[in-house]
Amino acid sequence: MKALVYRGPGRKAVEDRPKPTIQAPGDAIVKIVKTTICGTDLHILKGDVATCQPGRILGHEGVGIVDSVGAGVTAFKPGDRVLISCISSCGKCDYCRRGMYSHCTTGGWILGNMIDGTQAEYVRTPHADTSLYPIPEGSDEEALVMLSDILPTGFECGVLNGKVAPGSTVAIVGAGPIGLAALLTAQFYSPAEIIMIDLDDNRLGLARQFGATHTVNSKDGKAADAVKALTGGTGVDTAIEAVGVPATFLLCEDIVAPGGTIANVGVHGAKVDLHLETLWSQNITITTRLVDTVTTPMLLKTVQSKKIDPTRLITHRFKLDQILEAYDTFGHAADTQALKVIIAA
Amino acid sequence: MKALVYRGPGRKAVEDRPKPTIQAPGDAIVKIVKTTICGTDLHILKGDVATCQPGRILGHEGVGIVDSVGAGVTAFKPGDRVLISCISSCGKCDYCRRGMYSHCTTGGWILGNMIDGTQAEYVRTPHADTSLYPIPEGSDEEALVMLSDILPTGFECGVLNGKVAPGSTVAIVGAGPIGLAALLTAQFYSPAEIIMIDLDDNRLGLARQFGATHTVNSKDGKAADAVKALTGGTGVDTAIEAVGVPATFLLCEDIVAPGGTIANVGVHGAKVDLHLETLWSQNITITTRLVDTVTTPMLLKTVQSKKIDPTRLITHRFKLDQILEAYDTFGHAADTQALKVIIAA
Repeated sequence: MKALVYRGPGRKAVEDRPKPTIQAPGDAIVKIVKTTICGTDLHILKGDVATCQPGRILGHEGVGIVDSVGAGVTAFKPGDRVLISCISSCGKCDYCRRGMYSHCTTGGWILGNMIDGTQAEYVRTPHADTSLYPIPEGSDEEALVMLSDILPTGFECGVLNGKVAPGSTVAIVGAGPIGLAALLTAQFYSPAEIIMIDLDDNRLGLARQFGATHTVNSKDGKAADAVKALTGGTGVDTAIEAVGVPATFLLCEDIVAPGGTIANVGVHGAKVDLHLETLWSQNITITTRLVDTVTTPMLLKTVQSKKIDPTRLITHRFKLDQILEAYDTFGHAADTQALKVIIAA
Repeated sequence: MKALVYRGPGRKAVEDRPKPTIQAPGDAIVKIVKTTICGTDLHILKGDVATCQPGRILGHEGVGIVDSVGAGVTAFKPGDRVLISCISSCGKCDYCRRGMYSHCTTGGWILGNMIDGTQAEYVRTPHADTSLYPIPEGSDEEALVMLSDILPTGFECGVLNGKVAPGSTVAIVGAGPIGLAALLTAQFYSPAEIIMIDLDDNRLGLARQFGATHTVNSKDGKAADAVKALTGGTGVDTAIEAVGVPATFLLCEDIVAPGGTIANVGVHGAKVDLHLETLWSQNITITTRLVDTVTTPMLLKTVQSKKIDPTRLITHRFKLDQILEAYDTFGHAADTQALKVIIAA
């Protein structure tokens, strides 16, 4: 089968690889129908993710059709259409029983990282009963690809951890796909204001179309002043960090109101300064989270009932044999204005 | 009247000052019966608290007898025995209505800071109806002095923010009065383990008497390893920072388990390194808080019902005219083994 393989920092290739086979009773083999590329795949290609070794098939998102299942799988059978979660969960370990699937002792984020992933014709999914979700009849499969990772990440790590609430004020720092996913799902809770902050005017324009009440271009270095001016001087109840660099986290420290929450979503490669000399008395909360995907069934219902339309995040479509072009398009988003790209296998 | 007055960094004096008078309809004048000294008073004397200007009478804790009240005070009358909260709250502003009295727009921590405090024969207490608490008949007044600040601080900022729960594992970094107050109140929630960490073996011995299941002396720099060894390698569900320096906060970052909480209680004078390059995916929560004293009525009931005995924190007793000696004793705790000192006016 064809597959996109990580070949070490800066190197990737489309290769012919053997079709995966059942290795454990809980496995399923899924024929990929649609997949996508994540910002995390670009991190891997930079060599930032030590757990992902050369030779790995990338990708942790997608929808497909069950091809075969192990002897222990009871919830799925060949022919079933399924959504593949970016997080594999055994459902049995202490972390899974607490709903913290991200830290499953035999799962977590392993697809396209510690085991071969979804940017291929087939993928082996461990713990299939608790890591795949049935796709309801008549669903838009491209919309559901957004449920593998990006929607639950923006929602769980940003909106839920950030305690977005009716009438509250929210700032989202970073209007990339994850920040926009947080913007879409924050509106479930009817906040009074959602201020979107980014360097890219195109993305800020999209944010306004997607429901942001205000946008701030932070290139002048005065974003904190602008947010304070928009919130009567006090700052926001929820600051969602959706970039992953020190400057954007510091901006969140500057704009969070007393009693507010900084919900970190970004993947950080370096430490940040935490200004406890001022924040110790400000009654704030800071949260971090690797997405657990516990809300996938809930988000599926919001898509089915048309409360949100995640296809708005899709800007480009490719075939699997064009995946190198898809990476180029996704990797140069400032030029291509790409958000999420769909790859049909 | 006699009063302990801050005279600028490193300087304090007992002075004769006029008895305070009612200045606003919500004021009460309270004759002090018992007061104490807080670690924060030592911070002021070092010149660390810019809002406290020379000439200020120090002290934000105490019990007393109402001497007179303003025209707007309805909950108290002269002769009533009262507990004075370290936090003054109007009960009317947005923050007070959310239970965040610490950020009351005309109150908060003002006693012995922005207005004259309790280390005197009399004190003026603004917003008396919502900042004083009636003392039940037959109460131990020395126990209640611990309710002005130290008990609610350890409880709200440490135990409640830290989400201490039945069966959970807790580490408290710092076995000073605040850390020990967190230790006493953490036991309301029946955690499985409470690990107390300090440099002072005397305080660690007290911690064991007060209910710590394990103690770790951190002077060898291997406290994190010790905590990991005590928790099956995973770290603690709750890490309470009760010191206020970068090293102790970093220790909390090292020992918090995935899904756990770092509850900051310490007053910090400098920024700390937040290691988001590892913590971004660890599903942790960090909280900060200036005590709101919203739990004072609840804590009063726990003292009345003998669920806790805060007099265990009291090591020394002085008269008001010995207050300079009381400061010496409290300020040299390593030698004097002082925890809280009671000053009778």
